[in-house]
Amino acid sequence: MDHDKKSQQTETMLGDMPVTEFRKVGHQLVDWVADYLEHVDERPVLPGVKPGDVRRSLPSEPPHKPERMEDIVADVDRFIMPGVTHWNHPRFHAYFNSTASSPGILAEFLSAALNVNGMVWQSCPAVTELEEVALDWLRQMLGLPGQFSGVIYDTASTSTLHGIAMAREALEDLRTREEGLAGRPEVPRLRAYISEFAHSSVEKAIITLGFGMNAVRKIPVDDKFRMKIPELEAAIAEDRKNGVRPFCVVATVGTTSCTSIDPVPAIADVCEREHLWLHVDAAYGGSAAIIPEMRYILDGCERADSLVVNPHKWMFVPVDLSAFYTRSPDILRRAFSLVPEYLRTSHDNAARNLMDYGVPLGRRFRALKLWFVIRYFGWDGLADRLRDHLRLAKQFAGWVSAHPSFELLAPVDFGTVCFRAHPHGMTDEQALNTLNERLLHATNGRRETFLSHTKLGGMYTLRIAIGHIQTRDSHVQSTWELVQRELKNLLATA
Amino acid sequence: MDHDKKSQQTETMLGDMPVTEFRKVGHQLVDWVADYLEHVDERPVLPGVKPGDVRRSLPSEPPHKPERMEDIVADVDRFIMPGVTHWNHPRFHAYFNSTASSPGILAEFLSAALNVNGMVWQSCPAVTELEEVALDWLRQMLGLPGQFSGVIYDTASTSTLHGIAMAREALEDLRTREEGLAGRPEVPRLRAYISEFAHSSVEKAIITLGFGMNAVRKIPVDDKFRMKIPELEAAIAEDRKNGVRPFCVVATVGTTSCTSIDPVPAIADVCEREHLWLHVDAAYGGSAAIIPEMRYILDGCERADSLVVNPHKWMFVPVDLSAFYTRSPDILRRAFSLVPEYLRTSHDNAARNLMDYGVPLGRRFRALKLWFVIRYFGWDGLADRLRDHLRLAKQFAGWVSAHPSFELLAPVDFGTVCFRAHPHGMTDEQALNTLNERLLHATNGRRETFLSHTKLGGMYTLRIAIGHIQTRDSHVQSTWELVQRELKNLLATA
Repeated sequence: MDHDKKSQQTETMLGDMPVTEFRKVGHQLVDWVADYLEHVDERPVLPGVKPGDVRRSLPSEPPHKPERMEDIVADVDRFIMPGVTHWNHPRFHAYFNSTASSPGILAEFLSAALNVNGMVWQSCPAVTELEEVALDWLRQMLGLPGQFSGVIYDTASTSTLHGIAMAREALEDLRTREEGLAGRPEVPRLRAYISEFAHSSVEKAIITLGFGMNAVRKIPVDDKFRMKIPELEAAIAEDRKNGVRPFCVVATVGTTSCTSIDPVPAIADVCEREHLWLHVDAAYGGSAAIIPEMRYILDGCERADSLVVNPHKWMFVPVDLSAFYTRSPDILRRAFSLVPEYLRTSHDNAARNLMDYGVPLGRRFRALKLWFVIRYFGWDGLADRLRDHLRLAKQFAGWVSAHPSFELLAPVDFGTVCFRAHPHGMTDEQALNTLNERLLHATNGRRETFLSHTKLGGMYTLRIAIGHIQTRDSHVQSTWELVQRELKNLLATA
Repeated sequence: MDHDKKSQQTETMLGDMPVTEFRKVGHQLVDWVADYLEHVDERPVLPGVKPGDVRRSLPSEPPHKPERMEDIVADVDRFIMPGVTHWNHPRFHAYFNSTASSPGILAEFLSAALNVNGMVWQSCPAVTELEEVALDWLRQMLGLPGQFSGVIYDTASTSTLHGIAMAREALEDLRTREEGLAGRPEVPRLRAYISEFAHSSVEKAIITLGFGMNAVRKIPVDDKFRMKIPELEAAIAEDRKNGVRPFCVVATVGTTSCTSIDPVPAIADVCEREHLWLHVDAAYGGSAAIIPEMRYILDGCERADSLVVNPHKWMFVPVDLSAFYTRSPDILRRAFSLVPEYLRTSHDNAARNLMDYGVPLGRRFRALKLWFVIRYFGWDGLADRLRDHLRLAKQFAGWVSAHPSFELLAPVDFGTVCFRAHPHGMTDEQALNTLNERLLHATNGRRETFLSHTKLGGMYTLRIAIGHIQTRDSHVQSTWELVQRELKNLLATA
């Protein structure tokens, strides 16, 4: 008996946190998160720290002895929160914003507790099969044909890497999976075509895959920042003439700079005629296709070979969840399947092993949060929320257009507005750029709203992305008022 | 007033889940998770479903209308849990097991609520700086020198991809970042060396990066499954003679098959002499180095160019968190930095932008869970828990060795034991393989424990990985009893 008691004590000293403590701290954290969500818009969206502040506030050496949870949680408030940029804030309008909606947060909590790893079907059947179900729901919502099948990656960068890796694998005669690209006189230089406005992740993927940055040819855009088809055709013809082998076009639905939409149907025509892989980056814009009257933005995408949409951008799913679709899962599998003995299972012929479809072997239970979010809000509820963002963006664009000292710099197709200050009589572009850069910093410097910027036709451009689930008229309006006020200040002190 | 009321109603209809509901469901889920953690060992570790069962239990079309959280949560119990393999179960002994400890789960919950994305410093200073702090703590715990700096990726596969991409970037004369590998007569075939026992992710990385599978040369192992140095040297010499350019060696500390440890100091000598990149895959084994008397397993790794350790494998951090270290962060940055205008910030010279160090642009707040886990258990507490797993593994190995019908098939350096049934007088290897394969399926078929397998020297080998934070003597003992019982059954019915 004594021995049993002692062994039990030892077990308690090792092991995990006692469940009673987990329960207590867990309840406290639910209230912490609820309070955070309820009052996040009263916080400054941007932190006031300088580089190194957070780091310097923390011990530089790990603790040898255990610390108490209440101290750890208190330190989150004292040292971590002051360094947090509040992505889950209704006035976070930079980049493409992202919402962790409540059902998504709760699903992530469950997913962390289950801690499953869906590398093969057997290692967690529910991961594999719920991923199939949730991605097929999303496929239907996006209006993509049934032959598209999906797989979840962490980010659009990773999805695009896989799309272009498939384009390489599709060049069957080159046998690059076995032989690679190097030291082979029979392999020509290869070329991928993107618009000047494609996301930097496409170039990063091209570099990573061993094609080199020079394998990317950037096609000029028209006055609405869309890839020019005649220029694409001319580039392909010129490359072929020079012994360079075209293999891939990446089109974008909702470019990061200004949310322009490449003419996918015409690009698909070119790809079909030229036998090129078509990858569509709809990471941001794609979500809007779940709104019936916006479905047109994916016109032509049914002919894409691969396509990425990020529910963690504009569908209220916490980061990270990037949905990758392809009409040729067999090519994806051919490119990435490698099954060592220790991962063979007796189900390999009957079930899908998701590790065969990409670089990462491990796989969190990400589908759970997508499934929770779709069910809790419903397709119609999600569409209503996105529609409201479109309304707010149009409204903001209207304010900009109507104002004598501001101007719109790009069409507004989604929830993002590109604009700049352009006071009457100010014509020097250099001075305008300086003014707008100062305007951005002055506005963000108030820490009440977070805008980002880009350059369009050489013009320094302010961007407001409206896409947080809690963003209301009042938030957008106060940002607009702030921008006007800061411009007045700048012009007054100039 | 009426207008305000109506507008408020509309706002409620859109927006997120009401905070009162979040609070209610959140508290329910904390209790759900607490109950799960308290009683997980009473569940079968393996699910009873067949391929397609989970999928067929769920609607094939997305709901148009919102559903109630209580129905969604109820469906987790009804349809998802029956398809879950319980990785967070103390008798999950397959692959390398993984624990979501309570502080790790709670940190993930916070991380999902904050939903920050640390692509650049400005987009969330706390993500960048806590990642630096937590990875530097871990570096100290692993006994790596101060010039190693770290970055978090999702999985070891991704970490290894980045290590080998760095090896390519280090071949400065080839300028592959700009020019790529294809269509260049001046670029020879390239070669990477791994042991026969290296993880399949190394080959996957080599394929992904455009070298082709044939760029991998597998070096034979000695009787302890460690890379043979003379064979490595001979392979390099032969390749050089044939005009193939060696560029990289991947050594493993804790191979997936049998946890063998390549002779890193001798490999480092070869790499130094031959000017080859040395990447060390210590994804599993590395964690053990936090135990002072086990630090020797990383001997020589201070000379590695890059190294990966996975706290989500054997340091009680929920998936996914892979820690990647390098002595040359400048090369990693050179390989992956690409900064478009919309991601330029005024802090770019003063702060580190983590997007510059890898393929994914987006970055969850993963450091939080590592920081929580190290603080809650303390370095000593983590070491004590790992030490206990080593004790349990030695104990299991002792039982195997002492049993007349079983034998050990590999040295036991960590928490994993490779063994097989070998009844007295049974000498036919084919029959032994069949017997052990049937033994594995019979044992796992009870769903009380989950073992996996590998092949060692042609022998079908059972593997038990002991590494869950809640695994106690009783769990290991009951698995051992079950294996013996199943062997008896098989031999009786044979």
